[in-house]
Amino acid sequence: MGSDFMLQSPTARELYHNHAEHLPIIDYHCHLDPALIAADKPFGSITELWLGGDHYKWRALRANGVAERFITGKDTTDWEKFEKWAETVPYTFRNPLYHWTHLELRTAFGIDELLNPDNARRIFDECNGRLASDPSLTPRGLMRRYGVELVCTTDDPADTLEHHKAIRESGFEIRVLPTWRPDKAMDIDKPGQFRAYVKRLGEAAGKDIRSFGDLKEALQKRHDFFEAAGCRLSDHGLEEFYAEDYDVADIARIFDDALAGRPVSDADVRRFKSCMLEIFGEMDHASDWTQQFHYGTIRNTNSRMMKALGPDTGYDSIGEFATASACARFLDRLDSRGALTRTILYNLNPTANEVMATMTGNFQDGITPGKIQLGSGWWFNDQTDGMRRQMTALSQLGLLSRFVGMLTDSRSFLSYPRHEYFRRTLCDLVGADVEAGLIPYTGYERARLEQMIEDICYYNAKNYFKF
Amino acid sequence: MGSDFMLQSPTARELYHNHAEHLPIIDYHCHLDPALIAADKPFGSITELWLGGDHYKWRALRANGVAERFITGKDTTDWEKFEKWAETVPYTFRNPLYHWTHLELRTAFGIDELLNPDNARRIFDECNGRLASDPSLTPRGLMRRYGVELVCTTDDPADTLEHHKAIRESGFEIRVLPTWRPDKAMDIDKPGQFRAYVKRLGEAAGKDIRSFGDLKEALQKRHDFFEAAGCRLSDHGLEEFYAEDYDVADIARIFDDALAGRPVSDADVRRFKSCMLEIFGEMDHASDWTQQFHYGTIRNTNSRMMKALGPDTGYDSIGEFATASACARFLDRLDSRGALTRTILYNLNPTANEVMATMTGNFQDGITPGKIQLGSGWWFNDQTDGMRRQMTALSQLGLLSRFVGMLTDSRSFLSYPRHEYFRRTLCDLVGADVEAGLIPYTGYERARLEQMIEDICYYNAKNYFKF
Amino acid sequence: MGSDFMLQSPTARELYHNHAEHLPIIDYHCHLDPALIAADKPFGSITELWLGGDHYKWRALRANGVAERFITGKDTTDWEKFEKWAETVPYTFRNPLYHWTHLELRTAFGIDELLNPDNARRIFDECNGRLASDPSLTPRGLMRRYGVELVCTTDDPADTLEHHKAIRESGFEIRVLPTWRPDKAMDIDKPGQFRAYVKRLGEAAGKDIRSFGDLKEALQKRHDFFEAAGCRLSDHGLEEFYAEDYDVADIARIFDDALAGRPVSDADVRRFKSCMLEIFGEMDHASDWTQQFHYGTIRNTNSRMMKALGPDTGYDSIGEFATASACARFLDRLDSRGALTRTILYNLNPTANEVMATMTGNFQDGITPGKIQLGSGWWFNDQTDGMRRQMTALSQLGLLSRFVGMLTDSRSFLSYPRHEYFRRTLCDLVGADVEAGLIPYTGYERARLEQMIEDICYYNAKNYFKF
Repeated sequence: MGSDFMLQSPTARELYHNHAEHLPIIDYHCHLDPALIAADKPFGSITELWLGGDHYKWRALRANGVAERFITGKDTTDWEKFEKWAETVPYTFRNPLYHWTHLELRTAFGIDELLNPDNARRIFDECNGRLASDPSLTPRGLMRRYGVELVCTTDDPADTLEHHKAIRESGFEIRVLPTWRPDKAMDIDKPGQFRAYVKRLGEAAGKDIRSFGDLKEALQKRHDFFEAAGCRLSDHGLEEFYAEDYDVADIARIFDDALAGRPVSDADVRRFKSCMLEIFGEMDHASDWTQQFHYGTIRNTNSRMMKALGPDTGYDSIGEFATASACARFLDRLDSRGALTRTILYNLNPTANEVMATMTGNFQDGITPGKIQLGSGWWFNDQTDGMRRQMTALSQLGLLSRFVGMLTDSRSFLSYPRHEYFRRTLCDLVGADVEAGLIPYTGYERARLEQMIEDICYYNAKNYFKF
Repeated sequence: MGSDFMLQSPTARELYHNHAEHLPIIDYHCHLDPALIAADKPFGSITELWLGGDHYKWRALRANGVAERFITGKDTTDWEKFEKWAETVPYTFRNPLYHWTHLELRTAFGIDELLNPDNARRIFDECNGRLASDPSLTPRGLMRRYGVELVCTTDDPADTLEHHKAIRESGFEIRVLPTWRPDKAMDIDKPGQFRAYVKRLGEAAGKDIRSFGDLKEALQKRHDFFEAAGCRLSDHGLEEFYAEDYDVADIARIFDDALAGRPVSDADVRRFKSCMLEIFGEMDHASDWTQQFHYGTIRNTNSRMMKALGPDTGYDSIGEFATASACARFLDRLDSRGALTRTILYNLNPTANEVMATMTGNFQDGITPGKIQLGSGWWFNDQTDGMRRQMTALSQLGLLSRFVGMLTDSRSFLSYPRHEYFRRTLCDLVGADVEAGLIPYTGYERARLEQMIEDICYYNAKNYFKF
Repeated sequence: MGSDFMLQSPTARELYHNHAEHLPIIDYHCHLDPALIAADKPFGSITELWLGGDHYKWRALRANGVAERFITGKDTTDWEKFEKWAETVPYTFRNPLYHWTHLELRTAFGIDELLNPDNARRIFDECNGRLASDPSLTPRGLMRRYGVELVCTTDDPADTLEHHKAIRESGFEIRVLPTWRPDKAMDIDKPGQFRAYVKRLGEAAGKDIRSFGDLKEALQKRHDFFEAAGCRLSDHGLEEFYAEDYDVADIARIFDDALAGRPVSDADVRRFKSCMLEIFGEMDHASDWTQQFHYGTIRNTNSRMMKALGPDTGYDSIGEFATASACARFLDRLDSRGALTRTILYNLNPTANEVMATMTGNFQDGITPGKIQLGSGWWFNDQTDGMRRQMTALSQLGLLSRFVGMLTDSRSFLSYPRHEYFRRTLCDLVGADVEAGLIPYTGYERARLEQMIEDICYYNAKNYFKF
């Protein structure tokens, strides 16, 4: 894993080292906790920083037969957890965790060794020593170390955004912007949670929500508040797209039912979600934001562990939704009324890459280059093969040159090497095409190709999002 | 993009140059306008010839942020449209358009330069000069230039086929045959269009259609007329396959409802389509034609642009239909009554390659080699990766050696290089297997392999279709 | 096809020859007939041994235009059938049959020639001569020749297992264990067959089955009987997973309806199957067996040939079921009540590789390494590309290192080279990663990687199944 790691051809190396490696990072979608950036306290241990919330690693540990006690348990030590991870690492050959682990150790701690049980204790102690003493290993330190220029966190409309404010006011030179993620305002199929959420949202908006009209008004107020806080993107986590026929009176009645604790039928749930997606789309368009859709998950499949650990703990997987038609209808409704803003479609099932790559082409508008984007390989596709498949589908069915590129989607301050991983993959993929004579690499075309690499790594995102 | 373009190994080059390159083209499925072949007038400009109806290019232009005015607009010049395309071409690296563009410029106009904004004007002028003066660049000239032996256009049962007749009578040495594409006779879910179509069909058949019996009779008359005009293939554009249970009396009643303007339920629509597919299959079997099914599209997704530009303008995409079971039932019904003719299944979603490749194996009959065919990579799959995936699925789950090969599926007289693209891809794929020791290449087996390449490029189609 | 066949890199060759080639075979899922092993009679001819029940070859013959008479017909000779196969073989380039054919001829008969019409008669005679005289070519001889240590056949709960007993008592040193495959006990949608089966099952269990309670009791008795006979695995052939809500009284009533010949609705069929899957899962968990699910087929698509030849004759294909959610619910129900045993999920549609690879991660329990397994490339995926795709999905979304590896799934005693084919594919895949610098290959990591290869080829299966 030296400097030419993953770069199999001379052109790949040329493109990476001269046109990708040194560009800043715009991490336009992540799940970092802004409170940690605001506080900027040193991490207690490599275990806390590295294993604390990383469900990729948790899944690998479980698959390797490691007891939950050493993964999420409280009655164990940081060292024991680290030791179990070190034992598991050599069982992850061909899994991206093997590469991420070592990219992270090298880029954050300067450790070039391969982690295994023989050197685990030494590496554990060395990392912890550094974390205690090195100011470049705090949250802000790490962001500087990796050349981050801007990050967008993921936030609920009812959130105060107080930590974003604190960061802004602290004079931190890296921009940390919120993202509008209003999933809970759509979850009318979870009645108790929904009613509690409506109450909380009303409080945030300073408005007692008693009707669907109130709900829309409260959401708009919060949307304006996010806008004022620098928000430029929304994000939606969906199983599938919703584009049912409905009339507005129905929606008001469905909302009243939910608020009153009356049962809401499946058909009504779908109508309500269809309506909400459109309303959110219109708000984003009015604010000239970019809307993102992450769809295709089956979440919280393991009810025993859901009870024990809660959501986002490694029990989600890829679904099989046939949702292209609904997606087309949804986008068409917004487009028809002139309210389709810049949009990124992230599919979780890699078999939908081609479906969604062709979908983007239906709603390009001839004004914004790459207005509708096929999202970067997401979650389970966030490895070199997944990235290659996503970029190949996009290349062949759209314009790779207009791709806004990679994001970490991560809860961890150690995930920035995923941009490096992506850039190496991109350069290797394109470099191989050059070497095979499929892309020219002299004169005008060479300059264009080099610019394309830089665009995908940095400039496309910079121009597209209008931060 | 020299003579060895795409041919990465010595065996690939050997196979291509000695066994693929020089064979004639049988383009058994395309959308050329027979009126243009009949008239054989020179093209007014490279813009008209190249950009006039090519929705692949239009989608790339839109994705690149080019305004519709420069794509399909009337208030602009041929030069401006060409210029926008020249600006877009360098943004299409890794898209097949980049290769097609240059293969077309080279094979039709002898231009070896790579199109970009710097040389766009010169190339525009040079192409236009040639188009005005060179008789090998008229419709017929281009067909001769590319070594075309036969083409099948795509025609409606109500069509007069007058242009086919004119071509035949003109003594043109290249055969131009019609293909029976009766989609409109199935579209009972579009009531207004359906009633108008039934009227038009009746007029073509010289029969006032007042009942389902009349409809069948009129269609059979037109089928006979197509047969007499040299037609040997049918084609069906479907979202999915239909194989509902129905009884014949139902179908007659459903048709009466449609003709009388009464609403037709979704279930009835599916029954009607199920019945019509079988009727068409029986007609084709009786005439010993080959039937083709192109399925899996979502069409006309963008209603705003549908209103502005109509269908087939670049707003279609890949659907997600689970239709294998219906396809099996449909084919089984025909097979059970001894009425399953040669059949080609084209799937639009590449994830169905394996499904449909295994489907073909269920209805091979031990008489016609490769009787049921997995269709060539279609539409969005009409690029080197799509072709490789289709051929790999076919290879592993069926017999590549019996494949009837490539077609252009195109509206453009400049699309014949797609056969070259296909042949290069085929030879590269097979050549790589030889070099890896996976296919032998001496003695008996070498002769067989070389014959296989020739068969897929030309002889299989020649033998299969019984032109 | 020499000793380095398929092994493209030095590391691949090193791994294969030193760590994979010589390990014994644990064939934990196959369809061998135990009666043949018990009798251990020489095969009458290469045609009987090789072409007698192999529907892969039959499909290739049919696709090649060979009449059914020469495939499954009775009014022909062994030579004529062999001749037709020899004519077809050179048409199978790029199909796994081409490689399997020659691996089988070489490893069983020492024939290094490539079969084709020119040498067919000589090879036919040579093979038949050997079969008549060589004791290493009987069923048991072949199992010894290929280094088989243990096989699991596939057996119905009503089966007497008398042949397994005879084999055991004969002192045969290779273990031949039964597998519990209770599909027929779930097939309540085939009423006549179901009632006959219930009767047969009752006889085997020594119990007149008159109620659902009786059914469960009879099945448990047979499960105990299989356990006593050494059974350690169950297997289920499903179209899709079933996990409907039901209550137990419903199930008893549905069973009564079926037994009384009353119609059973589709919804009731699904409820019944949902319940039965859970019951079987609980029995397997109580016995500490491994349960296997082979899902995603469309079977018996060709009703004409079904009437002529019966099931399993080459008329099945890959389905398009969206069953991930049901699979998750099913596994969750067992897991919730502490009754989820070791489980292997085999998907037939390769587009579900990623879905099922992520599914396995939802129910790993931190005790058994690789408790939930993504099954080896199955049936139509049982070729080098299918294996690579399965292993790549598993690698990236789970732990390849914990994979229990290959099985033949075959009816033929000549299929053991598929383990060789798999091992070569595995070593080539991993070797290429080493050469590309993606996996380290020195020191601790080298030993781990070599152990990983050995584990996947042999030791993982040995440890996982608790034979």
